Amino acid sequence: MKLTEDQKKEIAEQQSQKNATKRVTSPELEKILYEVLPVLDHGFVRVIDYMGDDTSIVQSARVSYGKGTKKVSTDEGLIKYLMRHWHSTPFEMCEIKYHVKLPIFIARQWIRHRTANVNEYSARYSILDKEFYVPEKKNLSAQSTINRQGRGDLITGDHADEVLQILKEDATRTYSNYEKMLNEKFDGTIIDENKAGLARELARMNLTLNSYTQWYWKTDLLNLLNFLFLRADSHAQYEIRVYAEAMLETVKKWVPITHAAFLDYRVGAAHVSAKGLKIIKSMLVGKEVKYEDSGLGKREWNELMETLALTKNFIK
Amino acid sequence: MKLTEDQKKEIAEQQSQKNATKRVTSPELEKILYEVLPVLDHGFVRVIDYMGDDTSIVQSARVSYGKGTKKVSTDEGLIKYLMRHWHSTPFEMCEIKYHVKLPIFIARQWIRHRTANVNEYSARYSILDKEFYVPEKKNLSAQSTINRQGRGDLITGDHADEVLQILKEDATRTYSNYEKMLNEKFDGTIIDENKAGLARELARMNLTLNSYTQWYWKTDLLNLLNFLFLRADSHAQYEIRVYAEAMLETVKKWVPITHAAFLDYRVGAAHVSAKGLKIIKSMLVGKEVKYEDSGLGKREWNELMETLALTKNFIK
Amino acid sequence: MKLTEDQKKEIAEQQSQKNATKRVTSPELEKILYEVLPVLDHGFVRVIDYMGDDTSIVQSARVSYGKGTKKVSTDEGLIKYLMRHWHSTPFEMCEIKYHVKLPIFIARQWIRHRTANVNEYSARYSILDKEFYVPEKKNLSAQSTINRQGRGDLITGDHADEVLQILKEDATRTYSNYEKMLNEKFDGTIIDENKAGLARELARMNLTLNSYTQWYWKTDLLNLLNFLFLRADSHAQYEIRVYAEAMLETVKKWVPITHAAFLDYRVGAAHVSAKGLKIIKSMLVGKEVKYEDSGLGKREWNELMETLALTKNFIK
Amino acid sequence: MKLTEDQKKEIAEQQSQKNATKRVTSPELEKILYEVLPVLDHGFVRVIDYMGDDTSIVQSARVSYGKGTKKVSTDEGLIKYLMRHWHSTPFEMCEIKYHVKLPIFIARQWIRHRTANVNEYSARYSILDKEFYVPEKKNLSAQSTINRQGRGDLITGDHADEVLQILKEDATRTYSNYEKMLNEKFDGTIIDENKAGLARELARMNLTLNSYTQWYWKTDLLNLLNFLFLRADSHAQYEIRVYAEAMLETVKKWVPITHAAFLDYRVGAAHVSAKGLKIIKSMLVGKEVKYEDSGLGKREWNELMETLALTKNFIK
Repeated sequence: MKLTEDQKKEIAEQQSQKNATKRVTSPELEKILYEVLPVLDHGFVRVIDYMGDDTSIVQSARVSYGKGTKKVSTDEGLIKYLMRHWHSTPFEMCEIKYHVKLPIFIARQWIRHRTANVNEYSARYSILDKEFYVPEKKNLSAQSTINRQGRGDLITGDHADEVLQILKEDATRTYSNYEKMLNEKFDGTIIDENKAGLARELARMNLTLNSYTQWYWKTDLLNLLNFLFLRADSHAQYEIRVYAEAMLETVKKWVPITHAAFLDYRVGAAHVSAKGLKIIKSMLVGKEVKYEDSGLGKREWNELMETLALTKNFIK
Repeated sequence: MKLTEDQKKEIAEQQSQKNATKRVTSPELEKILYEVLPVLDHGFVRVIDYMGDDTSIVQSARVSYGKGTKKVSTDEGLIKYLMRHWHSTPFEMCEIKYHVKLPIFIARQWIRHRTANVNEYSARYSILDKEFYVPEKKNLSAQSTINRQGRGDLITGDHADEVLQILKEDATRTYSNYEKMLNEKFDGTIIDENKAGLARELARMNLTLNSYTQWYWKTDLLNLLNFLFLRADSHAQYEIRVYAEAMLETVKKWVPITHAAFLDYRVGAAHVSAKGLKIIKSMLVGKEVKYEDSGLGKREWNELMETLALTKNFIK
Repeated sequence: MKLTEDQKKEIAEQQSQKNATKRVTSPELEKILYEVLPVLDHGFVRVIDYMGDDTSIVQSARVSYGKGTKKVSTDEGLIKYLMRHWHSTPFEMCEIKYHVKLPIFIARQWIRHRTANVNEYSARYSILDKEFYVPEKKNLSAQSTINRQGRGDLITGDHADEVLQILKEDATRTYSNYEKMLNEKFDGTIIDENKAGLARELARMNLTLNSYTQWYWKTDLLNLLNFLFLRADSHAQYEIRVYAEAMLETVKKWVPITHAAFLDYRVGAAHVSAKGLKIIKSMLVGKEVKYEDSGLGKREWNELMETLALTKNFIK
Repeated sequence: MKLTEDQKKEIAEQQSQKNATKRVTSPELEKILYEVLPVLDHGFVRVIDYMGDDTSIVQSARVSYGKGTKKVSTDEGLIKYLMRHWHSTPFEMCEIKYHVKLPIFIARQWIRHRTANVNEYSARYSILDKEFYVPEKKNLSAQSTINRQGRGDLITGDHADEVLQILKEDATRTYSNYEKMLNEKFDGTIIDENKAGLARELARMNLTLNSYTQWYWKTDLLNLLNFLFLRADSHAQYEIRVYAEAMLETVKKWVPITHAAFLDYRVGAAHVSAKGLKIIKSMLVGKEVKYEDSGLGKREWNELMETLALTKNFIK
């Protein structure tokens, strides 16, 4: 991930600010404010602004519950309680804004999280950067044969080389034709002075979905955690997961108590159906439960056994 | 509006904070941060936190429009352009959080603005303050005879006294019975040690709608301006308008350029229908337009003439 | 719950409609369309309109997953899969509209569910009905001594009579004074021809929070299920739970497969934290786990033991 | 726009339904329900389901305003009143669901309208159709030299041929390489039995932005009108405008009264700033207003003069 001299200068200026404020601050997050956190080959995540910290959640909860909350002695105890009992509104009281550079096919997944504010670079208005995502070999997987939206074994050797060559060549050629149709190079050079360029809003349609775009993305902590729960998960596509993982680290710096509660009550937690719970109860009092009597489908049974670390009970 | 000693102390502590931050700050808003801005007899508005300033709007717009926006020379020019052309997303990039104390019947209007985050004092959990709104005589109006949701002439003399007495007595009595059912005074004193109190979630139903509640209310600048456009308007109920007016002053301190553009392109602007526009065009080229030929209803005609300051054309 | 003759006539007219449509219909829900389902003493729920049925969810999911979903043989299998894996968007493809009459203090809880469309009766515009909620004796509970937002033992005997008398008298008196200030009875009779009435938007503030209001409330199936999950739960306040229970029955008629999956994967399901899951795993392989070594707080431990039906392990 | 035999059969089945319902129906919309309305070269819009009609808006408004609305004699009068005074919630009471096939670069604009429910075809899960958008020559415009996000003169002759050839060849080649990487043809044929295919979630990144995708898109009437106001406007990109225009026709069939009010009070209406209004008022009483004294920028002045059909006053 390379930055232009202009970008480096802008970031240095932002980081050199030292303003006085009466607002609460999050010292650990301040340290990395504006910093470029590289993701994938040309992407990044930057924290641009934030509002509130762990104490803001506590403050809001105490307004709601009034004198009642005084008995909970610590901020940590209260935040854990709120997370455990699915209280949502106090976590909406913190807000964060990111600057993200990401491939378009990932942006299309990301944007489905609707409760957020977005300003995306407009290829209707300006020329898109000459950058596109090409996976590293270690992430070049075959289609899974058991999960329709998953990855299977690695693709290796000549086969891998062939795939990477296709991705590079097609992106390079379509970008080059994009410039040709625009009659303008990515750096602003006019190609043929005697020719008009195709409208940018049309020319962009020739680009491939691994082209990079960028946006400002702002959301509250509750919706950010929902996003991270889904996208930092092992079932998420690798190319969005790496963004979620980078952001999860910024959450840890921003609201460390909430981050710890999130790991315990969401990320590492398990959701067990009514039928699944009945099975666990039986097992805990020493009864043997067989798949055939469980009322579960095969896949559901295996998922439950995996959750319980009873892989010996797997059904094929 | 009286504050308890505890409240005064908490506010003083908040205001004495002096934190260093790399975030942008809004110096004029910082000056009144946490301050109690009194509204109505017992209500208030306080700015608790904020994120971004006028430059944040510009920054986001420039990400969207890329190199294209460089031609607009000033921040002010760009913000005016965005406001005039109804660009919405850059204004969502600023966020603000208020602490508000307000009568319940006003809270019920306010909450209809859905795109906001709210933590309200829970009367299920704690005992509500012993405070209720009673209008000043200068705001005690009769039902309008021409507008079903408006106010008409002032109510005066004995009639006014009677109304005020009813409001005070009923609120006082219902609150006193609320305490009685709770078996607990607002200050926590138990009334009868040998008796159980009714559940708070039930007892509260005896309170009148002019009882004060309070909440933290957080929203982005775009939705705040939408709220203020409707609620600072002369057609809004007086009791919510005074809150909107107090908040509009905080917007002026926070984002002064946006505030000015808002006054010009929203608050003072006029929306003219296709039929109305046709009438204006005719008038501007010197044609006389009569109500009968306008295609407008009477009320719509009069509204248009009022907008155009042509009150001589009113139809009765 | 009594209906006026006008209301009865309007409902009969609505129910007598027999229109032809190419849209999917839900035959069981059609049977009770427009019908008044009584709730509390004067409240009700009515289904006014709906869009889609179980097959609409399946249809949308199949668009998303394309040819891939063909392998899931049945609609039921697919809906269960979607519910189990927290797929949300297919459930947003069904919509329902209710007409609800409910006490204001319940309306204030209900409205916090923001993703819904609402048209509420406006007391700024019209006079509110002369109806207020008074609990039945069997629901008159004391404040819980262990849970700040819960109910404890029943209040009985003279104590109960006293509470009910207060609620009735205060509501009756404040309503009567409301009419007096309006100078108009609830049935439209003017009280004193020589007097102006106070503006409705002001007079309403004298009413108590158990006064009934009504609204049209429209939402999609996903958000309806979220609402019902929270409000049909045993921790919800009784007065909103009875509405949720009535609505849950309409969901059963509308989308029976989704209803069954909702009971298994949401209502009867358990959410176990990372720490809790570790404890279960240990127990399942025969290890004894003690509270002291669990890393859980007392309350959290007891909640887990209750979930697992191991009440013998409770800690005091 | 060609349909497969399977698609034709499915649509014919849907259209042959004849169900009885007590719900309100919109007879004109029923006539085109499920029908394919072609847009662009391979795209379409289909109405799949709907809820409510013009009377539903009226019904909801009457619940809000209670007895007060009885004086407005007609449904048309009330709907016009609601539209003119920006009442929003009654229009949220109608809901519609579309099935849309559209190029990805248009889908990216469309999805920015957040208040809608969406199920999109997943290229993570299934193979995308072999269809991509190529403009007709009459829509092949050069970049505007005065408006950074607009189109200028047509591109013609050899230049046009060259552009179209690029678009076709690049889309064809990238699709063909997509199949090669997948090791599977769009019709499901395996290319090389001894080879694994690249994961679909990766291979899709090679496709160009003019590839067609499809989705179910459901929204309420208010948000639909907001969408159409922006996207059926002459400043919208042609390729999304044609979708909006097709949908506007479906609105006309669905809610004809609301459609007429929308044209008068939104589409054909003008929004005039405070400064602009002052200028109009001066002109209407016969004063000459010069650009220099107007307080407006050049562009803003010209926009106002254009709105007022006073193009003789244009400033260069």
